Amino acid sequence: MDGYKGFLGLLVSSLLVGFLSVIFTLIWVLHYREGLGWDGTALEFNWHPVLMVTGFVFIQGIAIIVYRLPWTWKCSKLLMKSIHAGLHTVAAILVIIALVSVFDFHNALSIPNMYSLHSWVGLTVVILYILQLLLGIFIFLLPWAPLSLRAFVMPMHVYSGLLIFGTVIAAVLMGVTEKLFFALNSSGYSKFPPEGVFTNTLGLLIVVYGALIFWIVTRPQWQRPKEPNSVLLQPNGGAQEGAGGLTVNFSNVDTPDSKLNHEASAKKRNFTADEVGQRSTM
Amino acid sequence: MDGYKGFLGLLVSSLLVGFLSVIFTLIWVLHYREGLGWDGTALEFNWHPVLMVTGFVFIQGIAIIVYRLPWTWKCSKLLMKSIHAGLHTVAAILVIIALVSVFDFHNALSIPNMYSLHSWVGLTVVILYILQLLLGIFIFLLPWAPLSLRAFVMPMHVYSGLLIFGTVIAAVLMGVTEKLFFALNSSGYSKFPPEGVFTNTLGLLIVVYGALIFWIVTRPQWQRPKEPNSVLLQPNGGAQEGAGGLTVNFSNVDTPDSKLNHEASAKKRNFTADEVGQRSTM
Repeated sequence: MDGYKGFLGLLVSSLLVGFLSVIFTLIWVLHYREGLGWDGTALEFNWHPVLMVTGFVFIQGIAIIVYRLPWTWKCSKLLMKSIHAGLHTVAAILVIIALVSVFDFHNALSIPNMYSLHSWVGLTVVILYILQLLLGIFIFLLPWAPLSLRAFVMPMHVYSGLLIFGTVIAAVLMGVTEKLFFALNSSGYSKFPPEGVFTNTLGLLIVVYGALIFWIVTRPQWQRPKEPNSVLLQPNGGAQEGAGGLTVNFSNVDTPDSKLNHEASAKKRNFTADEVGQRSTM
Repeated sequence: MDGYKGFLGLLVSSLLVGFLSVIFTLIWVLHYREGLGWDGTALEFNWHPVLMVTGFVFIQGIAIIVYRLPWTWKCSKLLMKSIHAGLHTVAAILVIIALVSVFDFHNALSIPNMYSLHSWVGLTVVILYILQLLLGIFIFLLPWAPLSLRAFVMPMHVYSGLLIFGTVIAAVLMGVTEKLFFALNSSGYSKFPPEGVFTNTLGLLIVVYGALIFWIVTRPQWQRPKEPNSVLLQPNGGAQEGAGGLTVNFSNVDTPDSKLNHEASAKKRNFTADEVGQRSTM
């Protein structure tokens, strides 16, 4: 792997920053806010930021870069897909509990739901995330989808995955902003109280975590190498060779989990570059 | 160009959504808020969202995709670089005026500056944007930087450009959230007033605009073709060929504006794939 030390440094940094974001969120709700509970009060609401930062930010980020870990390259594609989908599933479960906590809290206190921009963007991205997860499992993890469908869907899967991750970070930053204006009032927040400074720092940590994940996942030299004997599905267009500044290269679209002899099957299926337009991992 | 109709459709959609975002921001401040002025009151503050959405979101988005317009592919690289840098410069000027308006407003009313997460993320990204613009002009537009430096910096230029654009959108969404909680109070906002619903819709439009720009700029088939007789600077790493789901491919790192005979000079400079690691446009 080219730049292995650089990769390791960035990986450790991103894990540290992501972990620190979770710890900061816990300190926020346990030290500055009311703590945690499940009783319809603010204690229950506080699970919302904790689970969102843990699941939707930290775990989702790890799930995104899991194919990049060079020590997993000897593992089977099916195993790596299962880990990728498994981490996203854990994240989705935490996200759903986080949503329940805020709806419960609102309903217990007769606070209207879904009026803020945070809630509009947030709920939209949760729905998209679950759709992305289900489509990902059906098309890439389960063995039934034909190679042509996998190849067709892959660019959208990668794009929407990263778009969802970025939008989640924006939604979290809006949520932090909203909560601080509720909790401190604008006059209190403007006096630079320790909670305001601390939670702003949490917001910056989340932005830095997102930036690190995006850097790691868009470096072509850190992608999982293509499988030997695999079908190399070249994007068409002469300008393709020598990919550019921002690349999510996934290794080949593999056949449904070793059921096919790659090369022979590819010939039978007679794929052309025009048909597939993509190399991918998952 | 592959998928020319699809490209045109997405381009027109993104321009429409971006333009609509600017119109929505104008309606927000002119119809729902106090209007526009330059007198230290809320009228002056209102320039802040108008100029940020116009410059930092709409114009920056166009600047990012300007190399993708197929009818510009016959134009010289220097001309396209100038347009790219020119649009970013216009955006930067609007952004600076937008910053002045909010600092003026705060100072006139003795409101503290820089206490909110919106202001922390926002000012950081303004500083990074101006640094990116200046570095871009010195390294890619002016003729002095050696090809090796251009090739080395290009992946970071592309990455940080898109990271900045995404972070700007997050900062704008935080700004909208903050302003609505100020202007409507949380109890007013929660009753679904027309201003709240309208401005939430503005927030969604901005997210959609960002999503369209990201899709356009990461499709490998829509990149500017490499120049004939240019130095093809291949990224190293065997896994590179057949780029993947998310690619910003810029055409070759050109020599400083036609001063060099590309191929001969490249041989003289004796670049290897290891040294440059990148193909790029700018």
